[in-house]
Amino acid sequence: MQRYFINKTQINNNIVTINESDTHHIKNVMRMSIGDNVYVCDNINAYLCEIVSINEITTLRIVKQLENNPELSVNITIAQGKLQREKEEMVIKALTQLGCYQYIGVQMSKSIVKTKKITDNKIDRIQKIIKEASEQSQRNRLMKYVSNITFKELISNFVNYDLVIFCDIAESKNVTLKELLSEHKYKNILAIIGPESGFSKLEKDAIKNANALTISLGKRILRTEIAPLFLLSAISYEEEL
Amino acid sequence: MQRYFINKTQINNNIVTINESDTHHIKNVMRMSIGDNVYVCDNINAYLCEIVSINEITTLRIVKQLENNPELSVNITIAQGKLQREKEEMVIKALTQLGCYQYIGVQMSKSIVKTKKITDNKIDRIQKIIKEASEQSQRNRLMKYVSNITFKELISNFVNYDLVIFCDIAESKNVTLKELLSEHKYKNILAIIGPESGFSKLEKDAIKNANALTISLGKRILRTEIAPLFLLSAISYEEEL
Repeated sequence: MQRYFINKTQINNNIVTINESDTHHIKNVMRMSIGDNVYVCDNINAYLCEIVSINEITTLRIVKQLENNPELSVNITIAQGKLQREKEEMVIKALTQLGCYQYIGVQMSKSIVKTKKITDNKIDRIQKIIKEASEQSQRNRLMKYVSNITFKELISNFVNYDLVIFCDIAESKNVTLKELLSEHKYKNILAIIGPESGFSKLEKDAIKNANALTISLGKRILRTEIAPLFLLSAISYEEEL
Repeated sequence: MQRYFINKTQINNNIVTINESDTHHIKNVMRMSIGDNVYVCDNINAYLCEIVSINEITTLRIVKQLENNPELSVNITIAQGKLQREKEEMVIKALTQLGCYQYIGVQMSKSIVKTKKITDNKIDRIQKIIKEASEQSQRNRLMKYVSNITFKELISNFVNYDLVIFCDIAESKNVTLKELLSEHKYKNILAIIGPESGFSKLEKDAIKNANALTISLGKRILRTEIAPLFLLSAISYEEEL
């Protein structure tokens, strides 16, 4: 069934007000009528709703809150050296489906992408990709997206997480991912992945000095766009299957 | 270091003969000289070699066999409803990096791709993608690729595997992937995944009647091009980390 993402403020006394853009989708794409059912998500919960009226905006009545929670029990943030647009879009679409909590593009010295070229249009396009992938994969919340931060900001953000893992094939490993995950005690994990050409020596040293734990992602060398998908799949396998 | 895939027949008395196409790469792309080192893989083992001569063909002397085996300890074959070319190429590139043993395209009733349009050129292009991804991810063997078989052939192939798993979100589950993998007794696994629009009712019934075990790939609905990546990542996590 079709799923729409709304703000909590759009719900009042069990009635949901749907904006013009989603109303267009309900009316002209889905061709739905009064009495039809849709799901809405307020970024925490999902609700089964019935359409009450369709005009320029649509109103829905909440029938019931859905009990099934499709979100990962661990909040995973991927911080990755800024990728070329096409690759970043592919990664974001996949990570949204895989239950990622947040994606942060980081200015790293070997990134090919120049951050001054990141326009609002590009950010809007990514937000649209996240919304569509969230609806299709039936998530309750939208993955957060931060277009770009500096490497210094990344390091100073470490304090916001209860575990920071560093994925680099060439570094010696501190611990296995399985050892970390099997404890089930980390709820807010930051994973750092390089851009296409990897990390600089300075970046590696800074990450290790800030006490990130270096882990392996299997026996083969993964391209940067596959590494975060591996990580999210492994975490979902450990936590959900 | 650069890695080249050869046939076992190219090795005689510790000397490896490299063909014209790879010689072109050694000479004109890598600009290597006599005395330089390369890796060669005969699809089972990998060897450190030294260049002895470079002419129209190149000869190498084997210095030593590498002990590190980067292959998954379980042979995973993905049989997937035939995908559109661009998606199939993306999936194959990723699965090669993730250690997949074999990929088979299957004619399914909801596949958009018409198999009569699969030319030798397209198959050559896929083989090239596999070779490059195998070199980059430093595998010892090339993933096998079967461009397309009928659905009937798929079912009759079940006898060649010691476990067949069926990945379909809508079907009730027989067992969890973790239960299956934690036994570490299956060495030759076939996993069946649908095309973009999923399986037909007839196909689902045929797969279940042939005793495939239905499993879940996490709590969210994955697009068909992400499902096999999830599976290989989960298996690598279970077996290698």
